[in-house]
Amino acid sequence: MTDTNNYTLGELAEHLGAQLQGDASTEIIGLHTLSSAKAGQLSFLANPNYQRFLEETEAAAVILHPDMAPLFSGPKLLVNDPYLAYAKLSKLFDGQRDLVAGIHPTAVVDDSAQLGLGVSIGPNACIGQGVCLGDGVMIGANSSVGANTVIGARSRLYANVSVYHGVIIGDEVTLHSGSVIGADGFGNAHEVVDGQFRWVKIHQLGGVRIGNCVEVGAATTIDRGALDDTIIEDGVIIDNHVMIAHNVKVGRNTAMAGKSSIAGSTEVGAHCIIAGGVGIAGHLKIADGTKFTAMTLVTKSITEADSYSSGTGMQRTKLWRKNAVRFGQLDKVVGRLSLLEKAMAKLLPKGE
Amino acid sequence: MTDTNNYTLGELAEHLGAQLQGDASTEIIGLHTLSSAKAGQLSFLANPNYQRFLEETEAAAVILHPDMAPLFSGPKLLVNDPYLAYAKLSKLFDGQRDLVAGIHPTAVVDDSAQLGLGVSIGPNACIGQGVCLGDGVMIGANSSVGANTVIGARSRLYANVSVYHGVIIGDEVTLHSGSVIGADGFGNAHEVVDGQFRWVKIHQLGGVRIGNCVEVGAATTIDRGALDDTIIEDGVIIDNHVMIAHNVKVGRNTAMAGKSSIAGSTEVGAHCIIAGGVGIAGHLKIADGTKFTAMTLVTKSITEADSYSSGTGMQRTKLWRKNAVRFGQLDKVVGRLSLLEKAMAKLLPKGE
Amino acid sequence: MTDTNNYTLGELAEHLGAQLQGDASTEIIGLHTLSSAKAGQLSFLANPNYQRFLEETEAAAVILHPDMAPLFSGPKLLVNDPYLAYAKLSKLFDGQRDLVAGIHPTAVVDDSAQLGLGVSIGPNACIGQGVCLGDGVMIGANSSVGANTVIGARSRLYANVSVYHGVIIGDEVTLHSGSVIGADGFGNAHEVVDGQFRWVKIHQLGGVRIGNCVEVGAATTIDRGALDDTIIEDGVIIDNHVMIAHNVKVGRNTAMAGKSSIAGSTEVGAHCIIAGGVGIAGHLKIADGTKFTAMTLVTKSITEADSYSSGTGMQRTKLWRKNAVRFGQLDKVVGRLSLLEKAMAKLLPKGE
Repeated sequence: MTDTNNYTLGELAEHLGAQLQGDASTEIIGLHTLSSAKAGQLSFLANPNYQRFLEETEAAAVILHPDMAPLFSGPKLLVNDPYLAYAKLSKLFDGQRDLVAGIHPTAVVDDSAQLGLGVSIGPNACIGQGVCLGDGVMIGANSSVGANTVIGARSRLYANVSVYHGVIIGDEVTLHSGSVIGADGFGNAHEVVDGQFRWVKIHQLGGVRIGNCVEVGAATTIDRGALDDTIIEDGVIIDNHVMIAHNVKVGRNTAMAGKSSIAGSTEVGAHCIIAGGVGIAGHLKIADGTKFTAMTLVTKSITEADSYSSGTGMQRTKLWRKNAVRFGQLDKVVGRLSLLEKAMAKLLPKGE
Repeated sequence: MTDTNNYTLGELAEHLGAQLQGDASTEIIGLHTLSSAKAGQLSFLANPNYQRFLEETEAAAVILHPDMAPLFSGPKLLVNDPYLAYAKLSKLFDGQRDLVAGIHPTAVVDDSAQLGLGVSIGPNACIGQGVCLGDGVMIGANSSVGANTVIGARSRLYANVSVYHGVIIGDEVTLHSGSVIGADGFGNAHEVVDGQFRWVKIHQLGGVRIGNCVEVGAATTIDRGALDDTIIEDGVIIDNHVMIAHNVKVGRNTAMAGKSSIAGSTEVGAHCIIAGGVGIAGHLKIADGTKFTAMTLVTKSITEADSYSSGTGMQRTKLWRKNAVRFGQLDKVVGRLSLLEKAMAKLLPKGE
Repeated sequence: MTDTNNYTLGELAEHLGAQLQGDASTEIIGLHTLSSAKAGQLSFLANPNYQRFLEETEAAAVILHPDMAPLFSGPKLLVNDPYLAYAKLSKLFDGQRDLVAGIHPTAVVDDSAQLGLGVSIGPNACIGQGVCLGDGVMIGANSSVGANTVIGARSRLYANVSVYHGVIIGDEVTLHSGSVIGADGFGNAHEVVDGQFRWVKIHQLGGVRIGNCVEVGAATTIDRGALDDTIIEDGVIIDNHVMIAHNVKVGRNTAMAGKSSIAGSTEVGAHCIIAGGVGIAGHLKIADGTKFTAMTLVTKSITEADSYSSGTGMQRTKLWRKNAVRFGQLDKVVGRLSLLEKAMAKLLPKGE
């Protein structure tokens, strides 16, 4: 990777608004964990379980909570949230990401497209008719942006991203490779003609609107609406292999982990946490601040913010099989229990 | 989006074979829901829950069941299935979809490829040796079609689609962005040489055959067969993130919702409905007309059409955890119940 | 497909080290199953269930276990593991796979890239700054390789593969279409500024290291590490739609079936078998040789190799619904059972 900039510890303290203890001129060439940091790297202690690494770390300096300051004798930055401080600094040390300056000669940009200042378009990328790219937008190699799509300032598409026509994307949005925005939602009527059943596709006439500061993971798909738009509000973060179906609305700052899905027309509130593999059925409404644990199937609307789950625990297969068989008899088992309770009631003296 | 054609209400009535009530010259410029329709748009009432929107809609006209006709005073189209009528009209109002006329100069088309009349090939698309494209086929930007693959008339590949070599695709098939047809099935033998285990790849020598009028969603994969072909019959509709493994056969008109999967060599019948996230194990046979509810794991063949399910309901995590613990003890719990039943039998008078 | 080479049965016997019975000059033009083999093709009997096809097969010759030799009268190859023999021969009969000789004129290769001998780069592929490709590497159409990535000898990327910057890939690795290697892991801190919550992205500064002889399926994603690398060891085989999150380590020869996932920082041992749809939570450690059955959710570390499962069996939906309701009452049901047991204890004579 191309060299990133180096910083002095004093500069980083200023960037964070952190209290500096030690030599402000200490040069910092990168970030790493306490156990892997090499000379010149800055590290951090966010999880108390790693406290024991403080003594042996080779890091040039460490970010710590003020309460932990006595545990490290070298140069340090004191902040209330070391994990947040690390996140903020990570941006400074992120290396080259295949930016091209300007428009690569192999890119195909329609004459009618409007390009902001400092737009970068990678090799073999295709920008369709009437597309509007804001200032500083970066389009990766082999990506495709369909007709009349609008992409806001400083948004970045990595390689092999597909954005269909008529999509509106905000500022500072990231779309990772293999993501697909604006493919047709899955809508079909059916008819029987001369005794033959056939599906009749509902052409998807709506679009997709993505707010500002949204991140979309690799191989994630967000379908266009049937008539209204599919909507992703500001600050939503989305991992890989996520599926968002047509006419879904995802509220601000909601987080969706890998392989989670939302079926058509469901409205998910703001600040929800949707763990990996969760499936939310269609036409539901999920309250702000709701959490779902991994692989939960959600088939009812949620009106009260809480954590919700489905499924069973994991066991050795041999034991699990016996219990799974019993699950299949559960209603009958409870019936047997009820019979016993009635029998017992007859046997017991009154009032017991 | 480029302007779509406009139609008079009379023209649309004729297209549908609908009974028209009101001014046949009413100009219709688009379709929308009752609540969102603007002046000039046509709407429809398919779900009785939306009946209350009939009074306040701004739609220029509405599609209704004849029984509902008295509820709307404006121009209307009367049909037995308004949802189907909406589906049929949606095609007319679907805007520009990034078609290129002819072959874009940056497309790479092998000299040996045979192209039908009116074929469109987008920027940077690659058409391999011996490929055969039927009349009116459209290939999206940056898509790739492997050697000797055949694609039938009027089929459409969106941007960034990958079709491997030796695949046969029918007429009027749609492949959405990120879909992959004909990658290798997951087959491996193994051997131990000098005490070292290693996997030995089974090269996948079969192909994929897709029938007519099939739709394949974004980021969906259909693997090639090991020796025989993987087969998708006519009229099958497939949503996003679906996985169809090698040597699977999917029968006509079956619908597969997002994230459903079929493992190797399983045969799914015709007219099945496979909900989101369903996983069907390998080497099974599923009867025509079978339905699976969302996220069901199917490990047995199905001989009788019905709806099948697995999993548990969703609860608040705190309560769910207690029940999940009990699931893990279920076989023992039933054992305790049986003991109690025996004890009770001794206590009870005969015949009770 | 372009003609593959033909072989004599004698040559194939030598290739496998098999005992040949019959005419060594029998010409073999391909491989197929016993029931589908045509004249000139070689078949095999690995599964005793197919023994009945031996009589009627049209295959020119068959691979058999020596114990089965008497059941087939034609030319045959005798080996201890016919399935392994078939796997080994499948490589010989695999047809053309869209190889290009040399570098296609439309490929965009940075001047600073180092290319080994016999490298093939397909149409519109993009090779970034400082990339290093080993001897015989093949890069498919429209694939993209990010800056400073290293790909070992004889590795193959199919069409539309995305490899980010700073990734290290070993020898003889296969990446199928739509796979994405090195996208950002899903890491975010958060802060509240002026009462407004916002996510703060943790830039992912680590890379991905993939060993030798690894296969990665279509639409599979392997994210780069936050600070350390994500690691896939030698011989790992990975199916389609698999998600491997940041800082995961997958041990040698582990197999991951379609749609399985591993969340961040989990270490999976060697020789594990992870079935389809399995989800493994983050920060766990899974012992060598562990197996998980399909769609199991793994939320605890595993210290002892065994097979593990979660979920329930499948039933008709009507019956399943009743049992699922009972699952939601399970803790209470066991409470009722305990009360009954206490009542019974009072009724029963001592010692019974």
